[in-house]
Amino acid sequence: MNSIPTKEDIIECHDKIKSFINRTPVLTSTTLNKIFGSELYFKCENFQKIGAFKYRGATNAVLSLSKEELAKGIATHSSGNHAQAIALAAKTHKTKAHIVMPENAPEIKKNAVYEYGAEVTLCEPTQKAREETLAKIVEETGATFIHPYNDYRIICGQATSAKELIEDVDNLDFIIAPVSGGGLLSGTSLSAHYFGEKVKVIAAEPKGADDAFRSFRDNKIYPSINPQTIADGLRTALCPKTFEIVKKHVSEILTVEEETIIKAMRLLWERMKIVVEPSGAVSFASIIENKEKFGGKKVGVIVSGGNVDLNDLPW
Amino acid sequence: MNSIPTKEDIIECHDKIKSFINRTPVLTSTTLNKIFGSELYFKCENFQKIGAFKYRGATNAVLSLSKEELAKGIATHSSGNHAQAIALAAKTHKTKAHIVMPENAPEIKKNAVYEYGAEVTLCEPTQKAREETLAKIVEETGATFIHPYNDYRIICGQATSAKELIEDVDNLDFIIAPVSGGGLLSGTSLSAHYFGEKVKVIAAEPKGADDAFRSFRDNKIYPSINPQTIADGLRTALCPKTFEIVKKHVSEILTVEEETIIKAMRLLWERMKIVVEPSGAVSFASIIENKEKFGGKKVGVIVSGGNVDLNDLPW
Repeated sequence: MNSIPTKEDIIECHDKIKSFINRTPVLTSTTLNKIFGSELYFKCENFQKIGAFKYRGATNAVLSLSKEELAKGIATHSSGNHAQAIALAAKTHKTKAHIVMPENAPEIKKNAVYEYGAEVTLCEPTQKAREETLAKIVEETGATFIHPYNDYRIICGQATSAKELIEDVDNLDFIIAPVSGGGLLSGTSLSAHYFGEKVKVIAAEPKGADDAFRSFRDNKIYPSINPQTIADGLRTALCPKTFEIVKKHVSEILTVEEETIIKAMRLLWERMKIVVEPSGAVSFASIIENKEKFGGKKVGVIVSGGNVDLNDLPW
Repeated sequence: MNSIPTKEDIIECHDKIKSFINRTPVLTSTTLNKIFGSELYFKCENFQKIGAFKYRGATNAVLSLSKEELAKGIATHSSGNHAQAIALAAKTHKTKAHIVMPENAPEIKKNAVYEYGAEVTLCEPTQKAREETLAKIVEETGATFIHPYNDYRIICGQATSAKELIEDVDNLDFIIAPVSGGGLLSGTSLSAHYFGEKVKVIAAEPKGADDAFRSFRDNKIYPSINPQTIADGLRTALCPKTFEIVKKHVSEILTVEEETIIKAMRLLWERMKIVVEPSGAVSFASIIENKEKFGGKKVGVIVSGGNVDLNDLPW
């Protein structure tokens, strides 16, 4: 897939991955609707396989490989949910996953990847070490590198979450998605464009990692340098493929304070009874900080994931 | 309602309360199914309004009152989910709730009841003080006392959870429900009897509060004396109305260790991404301790509630 996914691409992708992913539920809360004076529809990707939306893109990428490619395995570097997604996708489709992880990655995330039977190579916790280690593995094994977001197959897969949301809830005014590398956000904005009626897509980003906000404002990609946020899934920067789509189809990027992310996370746990990771609460945090903007509106809120260390909660 | 609910009573009750309650989702987990070699269907009453199944019975009870009764208010004593259920039901149906709570009830539970606008009277933390305080309030106000389980309207309401589960999942072999006063369990067993094909109902109870297990075995109600369990919703004893039904329609009562309850709770949080209170994890705990019994079976697991203090988790 060498160009921005079309409407047909996303429909075809959805049909292809359907039997491997969960169609995640859309949950609502009378109490939260009352508090915020909005109709909020939470698209629960924390209920997706591996606990995050990442499994959609990973599945689509793996299903796009030729038999020969698949036989040689797949590879990526990631300390987070993409690693788990690639590991499980490889297992499901009977190939090998090579995952490069920084040696300081949390034990809980390393273990999850081991559990899915992936081959894990630890490296120094720098971008350079990650890339070099990965390049070596790819050279030695012939495995296909699957980038976590700068890849149209990944973007196409992530787009299916918003497609389902739009199918399940009519006449949304907004869909809010968190932004990091932009895979979920660009996919969401494509689905809103192709399948929505008049729905606007808004991105939410931690103020302490606001590279996407600045990139969007200044029309050039800024790197993510020393991001300071509890939302460990949102610490990376946009890339060419995602930025091109985001520029065209996203209305606005809202940044949120750290304390609001924690407040949002806790409200979701307490009121919705769902386990959400900090990154997964950032969309909702933007509603807490912009109550008036969303007042009286129908808002789809993408809860991107629920992988959190229960021994290390932020309250 | 002066006799054991009939099939028609439960159908009628469900129709009556439908628009006030959540039809809670039934969730599944490929990972848990693989671990336990069973097909597990989790009926998520933690997603019910007020965070527990109790709202079903409370709603049915309030809707059963005459206009005159309703005008005089409703009353109960409870330190837990029944208090919240009565408080919200009163608010929804525009009457007053008088709730007697022990003065040592957790702040978080008191606050939830206050939030729903109920009138709270604190008393000494003894059964005698509770009953006397309540009797006084009932005498003064003419409010109707709604018992948390020794009441056919309550039993009938709680029965609707298993009715929904049976409607949503065909050919269940077992349904497991936790037991305390027996409102949920007796209702579940009635629905299994009326609406199920061949489904057996099993109760799960903490070993440290095994009065129901002993009552069932010896065919007489034992009181719950000094129960020792983290499952704060399962510390009370069966009563005549629930015991009569339980004796007839429940197959077995399984007791579980405290550490299994915590393990079950944590597995549900980690794997299913749902917030479940200790009492709500007891059904699943009985599967962990009886893997062989449930191997290869289709099992409905009632997750009774999700009201837990996030600042005081058992791990």
